[in-house]
Amino acid sequence: MFPFKSSIILDRTSGRNLYLQLCDQIIKLIKDGKLQPSTRLPGSRKLSEDLSVHRKTVIAAYDELLAQGWIETQQARGTFISQKLPIITPIKQKNLDIQSSATTNSGFTFTKRPDLVYSTITPKNTPILKVDDGSPDHRLAPVDEISKTYRSIANKSYHNDLFAYGSTYGNLDLREFLVTFLNQTRGLQITKDNILITRGSQMGIYLSGQILFKEKGKILVGETNYLTANYTFAEAGGEIITIPVDNEGINVSKIEALCQKNKIKALYVTSHHHHPTTVTLSAERRMHLLQLAQQYNFAIIEDDYDYDFHYSHAPILPLASNDTHGNVIYIGGFSKIIAPAIRVGYIIASKDFIDEAANLRRIIDRQGDPVLELAMARMIKNGDIQRHSNKVLKIYRSRRDLFCSLLKNKLGSYFDFEIPNGGMAVWVMLKRKYSWDDIIKESSLLGIELNPEWKRYDPHNLKHNGIRMGFASLNEPEIYEFIARLEKVMNVLYET
Amino acid sequence: MFPFKSSIILDRTSGRNLYLQLCDQIIKLIKDGKLQPSTRLPGSRKLSEDLSVHRKTVIAAYDELLAQGWIETQQARGTFISQKLPIITPIKQKNLDIQSSATTNSGFTFTKRPDLVYSTITPKNTPILKVDDGSPDHRLAPVDEISKTYRSIANKSYHNDLFAYGSTYGNLDLREFLVTFLNQTRGLQITKDNILITRGSQMGIYLSGQILFKEKGKILVGETNYLTANYTFAEAGGEIITIPVDNEGINVSKIEALCQKNKIKALYVTSHHHHPTTVTLSAERRMHLLQLAQQYNFAIIEDDYDYDFHYSHAPILPLASNDTHGNVIYIGGFSKIIAPAIRVGYIIASKDFIDEAANLRRIIDRQGDPVLELAMARMIKNGDIQRHSNKVLKIYRSRRDLFCSLLKNKLGSYFDFEIPNGGMAVWVMLKRKYSWDDIIKESSLLGIELNPEWKRYDPHNLKHNGIRMGFASLNEPEIYEFIARLEKVMNVLYET
Repeated sequence: MFPFKSSIILDRTSGRNLYLQLCDQIIKLIKDGKLQPSTRLPGSRKLSEDLSVHRKTVIAAYDELLAQGWIETQQARGTFISQKLPIITPIKQKNLDIQSSATTNSGFTFTKRPDLVYSTITPKNTPILKVDDGSPDHRLAPVDEISKTYRSIANKSYHNDLFAYGSTYGNLDLREFLVTFLNQTRGLQITKDNILITRGSQMGIYLSGQILFKEKGKILVGETNYLTANYTFAEAGGEIITIPVDNEGINVSKIEALCQKNKIKALYVTSHHHHPTTVTLSAERRMHLLQLAQQYNFAIIEDDYDYDFHYSHAPILPLASNDTHGNVIYIGGFSKIIAPAIRVGYIIASKDFIDEAANLRRIIDRQGDPVLELAMARMIKNGDIQRHSNKVLKIYRSRRDLFCSLLKNKLGSYFDFEIPNGGMAVWVMLKRKYSWDDIIKESSLLGIELNPEWKRYDPHNLKHNGIRMGFASLNEPEIYEFIARLEKVMNVLYET
Repeated sequence: MFPFKSSIILDRTSGRNLYLQLCDQIIKLIKDGKLQPSTRLPGSRKLSEDLSVHRKTVIAAYDELLAQGWIETQQARGTFISQKLPIITPIKQKNLDIQSSATTNSGFTFTKRPDLVYSTITPKNTPILKVDDGSPDHRLAPVDEISKTYRSIANKSYHNDLFAYGSTYGNLDLREFLVTFLNQTRGLQITKDNILITRGSQMGIYLSGQILFKEKGKILVGETNYLTANYTFAEAGGEIITIPVDNEGINVSKIEALCQKNKIKALYVTSHHHHPTTVTLSAERRMHLLQLAQQYNFAIIEDDYDYDFHYSHAPILPLASNDTHGNVIYIGGFSKIIAPAIRVGYIIASKDFIDEAANLRRIIDRQGDPVLELAMARMIKNGDIQRHSNKVLKIYRSRRDLFCSLLKNKLGSYFDFEIPNGGMAVWVMLKRKYSWDDIIKESSLLGIELNPEWKRYDPHNLKHNGIRMGFASLNEPEIYEFIARLEKVMNVLYET
């Protein structure tokens, strides 16, 4: 007889019912090959005595095992492990510690992608002073307004419908408010049929890439560019062709020359401030670009991630504001203005493209978060977003001014940079006789974290020696501290 | 001289600054080709008189246009439209109503996918009684608990970090609570390295498909199956092979035969209750399946979408609970138990697969919603989810009982079905002499909405004549009403 008494150990302090524990353990004994098919089980009275449990517990466990097909009763003979189960020979584990070994490696193969996550995110509350590549300061997030709005929506019983399955296009109120908001602030001429709410602007880039490059195709990007966009298009099947970028933005004449010889599917551009160099695409090039897109029927993916951040003059209206032929796919979001974790963005394009984006998005994550989306709609309507935007803009502007003046005055002999007229980062070029690798290494000893993968800004080996330094997420004392520490780094390295 | 006075109309009631309106309109005139390069602009005094605005408004507008590169000043000569702008010939619009025409069709081509959205979602507050294919009742969503938890998290200043960029793997607290919760309730043996938080279980299916079929490959699914999964795998590049399903679930012997001749990459299975037929995969087949996966190195994508919904006996532990070799990718979520709009799910697999899923997810939507994720973690920890689950389970069970007994007693002569031992829908097979098409047509006249695309349940023309009828989202009066209306439909059609 199988030693049930010693093989089964019930834990009376566990939250799990005793009868279920008994089931679990008998199933485990079967799976491990210790209880073979056709083994007779002890009667319920016997087992209950062996295990010191109530007989009803054993009966309930047997009922359960019967219902699940692990055991069978044969009339007048008793209860047996099901004969139909294949006989299992216990598998010899290479490593007996199943918990850690079995779950590290897959039992099947798959093709790994290149590392698409290029930067690790360190929580801000470390003593290290981290300089990111242009993130907003989440400490300024309008947390009160968000949570108040969220609560007021969720608590209204007439909003219960928000918790049902919703539209893949996004919450209708938000789409409608955004139409008005974007038509007013960006000179667009759209209706709600031209807009899909996404999970932040990255989803807009992803959807665009997957749709445009289903049958492969060429995508033009800046020779310096926002590299996550490159990865996203390459993942989708796009063939990436790089175009030089100068102080008026991407070189549109080169694009024209390319179009004359090749079928171009799309161009990706951050027209407001080129990523990473922060230059603005000139008016002349904008018009030229739109003309080319019409003439050669390519898509312009206009990622307007920092439209709201302009310090010197009003923002230049996006290409999308003059898109009369449905060439522009316009991407934006609230993550930069409200908080990085608020993943609500939008993609704006011709109706047929938006319909296809919804069709695809249906199988990615089905839909967005209707409560959060309605909260955003409310915050647009009641002016919260505009007020918050005005507030942080002033703060970021003064941070930019402080950061740039200190960088110029204290460290001007090492770096070249232009004061950006918008955005959240400065494009800082180290004079060529110095080395970022040395600086980054020394910095980490002195409590600064600069982007350790600075080389990613120069995949084409243009030797611009530049990195982005985000000023927006550092408050004034932090900026002073950063510059002081960086001075120390430069002194240690380069002053005798 | 260009007729500025009549071409520019400023709206003093608009929210937009007058000087910006002036800019917008001059830019538009340039873009439309009405103001050509090198055209001289009127002096600020003259234009301010023409337009009846303060002279400073015109100066501000000119400064803005200058900064943006649209105009240039020539010393002692005046202000001109920039010479560098290409000369634009006004494009003749096929249709002058830009707002509707230009934005319907794209100015570029793309390959359309098949329609991946198979069912339209009608809001519940219509007089039509809609019978879905197995959704929870959103009216039961624990809205109070969610919004209370959300508020309490968002309002704590020490949670401000939640609004910064967060982990692509999901909120760490939620991952850790889920590890404990799933190990206890589903017999898993995982650590936090085996879990990625997704936007509902659909994102788990999407990520799995994209990773497994990057280099194509064969995927096995039931001959009846959850079709959205099929679409998702086909989109990813998977070649779909269908396997018969009987009253013990998917036919594993057929799978073995296939494996002997073909390289199989993965199998998709809803083991707890097969979708759509609701049968449970038998214990014998489960063990056989795991053996095959180990032997032939394929992945088992176990979609356990309704694990929590079991009425007759305790749920059978998932395949993942006995996965010693990293073959199972286990997918689940909170959408069914809490509310469809709460898009928080998880994917559980070997660490290397989870790392790759995070790598890919980084370019899809970057990360989840940390506040909502932490709220879910709290609700697991404080027992809210378990309490809610117990509550709705009782309700759904009594709805199932009522639905099935009425269907049997009142309409048993038309339909064959088994009472499902779990889930939220009954698999209702119409006797073959009757026609769903007729019934659906007549139903709509009598105020019932059945799934109009019932044929999608039978893409392989098995002629089972079945559809899923969701009982969980209808309360008792609605169930009575539905059965009464359906009786009327059947009488109209088939009683003389």
